[in-house]
Amino acid sequence: MSNRNHHPIIDEARLWRTIEELGSIGMDASGGVTRLSLSSSELQGRAYIKQLMREAGLDVSEDAAGNIIGRLHGERPQEAVVMTGSHIDTVIHAGRFDGALGVLGGIEALRAIKEHGMSHARTLEVVCFTDEEGVRFGVGYLGSRAMAGDWKPEWLSETDAEGITLAEAMKAAGLQPEKVHSAARSGSDIHAYVELHIEQGRVLEHHQLPVGIASALFGHRWLEISLKGQADHAGTTPMPLRHDALSAAAETIMAVERIALEHGGVATVGTLRMVPGAINVIAGEVIFSVDLRHEDASILDAMALKIEQAAFSHKDSRGVSATVRVTDGDEPVTASGMVMEAIEGASGIADVGAMSMVCGAGHDAVAINALTGIGLILIRSREGISHHPAEWSSPEDCAAGAEVLLHTLVALANGQ
Amino acid sequence: MSNRNHHPIIDEARLWRTIEELGSIGMDASGGVTRLSLSSSELQGRAYIKQLMREAGLDVSEDAAGNIIGRLHGERPQEAVVMTGSHIDTVIHAGRFDGALGVLGGIEALRAIKEHGMSHARTLEVVCFTDEEGVRFGVGYLGSRAMAGDWKPEWLSETDAEGITLAEAMKAAGLQPEKVHSAARSGSDIHAYVELHIEQGRVLEHHQLPVGIASALFGHRWLEISLKGQADHAGTTPMPLRHDALSAAAETIMAVERIALEHGGVATVGTLRMVPGAINVIAGEVIFSVDLRHEDASILDAMALKIEQAAFSHKDSRGVSATVRVTDGDEPVTASGMVMEAIEGASGIADVGAMSMVCGAGHDAVAINALTGIGLILIRSREGISHHPAEWSSPEDCAAGAEVLLHTLVALANGQ
Repeated sequence: MSNRNHHPIIDEARLWRTIEELGSIGMDASGGVTRLSLSSSELQGRAYIKQLMREAGLDVSEDAAGNIIGRLHGERPQEAVVMTGSHIDTVIHAGRFDGALGVLGGIEALRAIKEHGMSHARTLEVVCFTDEEGVRFGVGYLGSRAMAGDWKPEWLSETDAEGITLAEAMKAAGLQPEKVHSAARSGSDIHAYVELHIEQGRVLEHHQLPVGIASALFGHRWLEISLKGQADHAGTTPMPLRHDALSAAAETIMAVERIALEHGGVATVGTLRMVPGAINVIAGEVIFSVDLRHEDASILDAMALKIEQAAFSHKDSRGVSATVRVTDGDEPVTASGMVMEAIEGASGIADVGAMSMVCGAGHDAVAINALTGIGLILIRSREGISHHPAEWSSPEDCAAGAEVLLHTLVALANGQ
Repeated sequence: MSNRNHHPIIDEARLWRTIEELGSIGMDASGGVTRLSLSSSELQGRAYIKQLMREAGLDVSEDAAGNIIGRLHGERPQEAVVMTGSHIDTVIHAGRFDGALGVLGGIEALRAIKEHGMSHARTLEVVCFTDEEGVRFGVGYLGSRAMAGDWKPEWLSETDAEGITLAEAMKAAGLQPEKVHSAARSGSDIHAYVELHIEQGRVLEHHQLPVGIASALFGHRWLEISLKGQADHAGTTPMPLRHDALSAAAETIMAVERIALEHGGVATVGTLRMVPGAINVIAGEVIFSVDLRHEDASILDAMALKIEQAAFSHKDSRGVSATVRVTDGDEPVTASGMVMEAIEGASGIADVGAMSMVCGAGHDAVAINALTGIGLILIRSREGISHHPAEWSSPEDCAAGAEVLLHTLVALANGQ
């Protein structure tokens, strides 16, 4: 926090202690944290969260999807609530901040609001959502999608690496998979949702600012492009007689980069496979992925189209043909203007340096957007590292984010 | 053969029958031929070759390295011999022509010379060299290098997939590995060497000609290039903050192609590996091979240098650093002017359409070049396919090549 005139309400040391305590659950000798959803370590983490909510003086409940809800009743309990939240499940060998900060920061914010007797007309809720990461059963946002009424019954049959179904894991955790639809909330019951999360990128570090205010979350398209040429002998095939699938792929990869820059989005070729893949054989086929992201769905589609055209352009020039398949995608989410304004105002009150930015990762807010207007408070990640034991945000930045969250919640609870 | 006025001396049907007979040895149900060096199928092939040489009226012997030599004594037996040859070992699941054509065409040429009572002052030899492919023990040109005096004793300890050493395999075949040095010949004993081989490329097919006369064999350099950037999240890392190793690799691959075209050589990136290789992670490292070939050693070195410079150029532009390692290489071989002229003259006598070209694949001629001037007669390969059951050259083209070989041998045998 820069040159703070504001007297902080968040207890930075207490927040940091809870990050350390939750981080120790599921931590291996090398410092990696693994709390796969509904695993024994994650269940231990959930017990910790419930206990922490109780200590914070919150009214604690759990819905049929396993979402843990800590409630701080407002002066006008009949009005739609203001909600914050995130998740405590992790990928394998993860860090201590992804998800955890949003839950712990939310609890700390509600606890501090209560302790300081801050007025809030609407009821405040902090939610620990079930299985955001989707690593164990292959489907993510389970809890937030259940709350949004987007649950699909077939998910219950999805299995983990050991063949255990989601339904079995839920039952073993004391949940009631057959009643999971009861977790659905009505949009009219939720005035707004705001989530605190680490950035998982290097933009804030680059700008030397602790906090980012998301104007949108990227939508994405995943493409699989196969370029087919001819596998020839590297020695006996002169350059003009070649149909080299890798040269065509290299041209396409350069085009992908150029198209992302021209459209103000991001695009990544993260996997590439050569067939046959021998030192002295010209590539007969190259298959690669493209991960495209943009905050505007129509621009996203335009980018995908241009990349497709680039892939098809090698037919005449190189005799290399293309197949393009869309393997995955989701639509961009625009942050609520009301929530963004509340966050901006809160940053001012908290005297925290903040910038507007687009969020490139997915969070529970994406699912909750189906119910209500959402906003995201991002905090600086060291070197942008995430999903790794080296994931790190400083105690000061965590507290700054929680302080902004607190004032945002209060403003939304007292606003129209 | 085009518009043939020449009366052929080669027996096309007999040559084709021997190609079919040898091709049936080691052939599996799907038509693939596997005769790994000194395996039971290759030993069966060697017995077939010895028998065929005897039927052709040649004086048959075998040296300590297992090279089978068929000799047709000339009118001046004290003079240096004229040699032809190739090999009958194959890669796994190969075709019927690679190597085999040179041995069978050589035997047919000597047989026809003898049957037609053609005068040849020098003695003619056709050699079936041991293990050209190098697939079984990881070292190739074993027989031709033994004959050239380039044998390395440590090769005897090389093992095959089952742990059998080359020495053991040689002994099992009745050879004497301890005496392999006795296979070395003196350069002064060999006037010239000419090898008949399938092109294994598409140049002759492209030019619609049956025969190519090699002016040189490409030398090669193999490079391994590693480009190191930074593995970042595909969603949260804006384009300007990236150090994408694959974008740098794509630029380098385009440069490799351009450099090959500018220098009149060939260059191929046949393998490429991404680290970490996940759809939503920017490549932190990309490792790829470059196979460079040219007929001029100094140009080959210049190409390698330019590619290295291209790999290093990303440090400033992208923050991607490079490591370049030379993993293999050999020097180009220039064909003997005398042998090339003899082949050109023979093509005229045989009325076979022929063009001068560079040979892009390696053959026993490379090793024998250490002893004497060499030449190569290449024949058209259908679609350039080789090392595959679909490898094919027509009976007419095989006979045309053997006819050119025959007249080349006679010219060299009677020349200065």
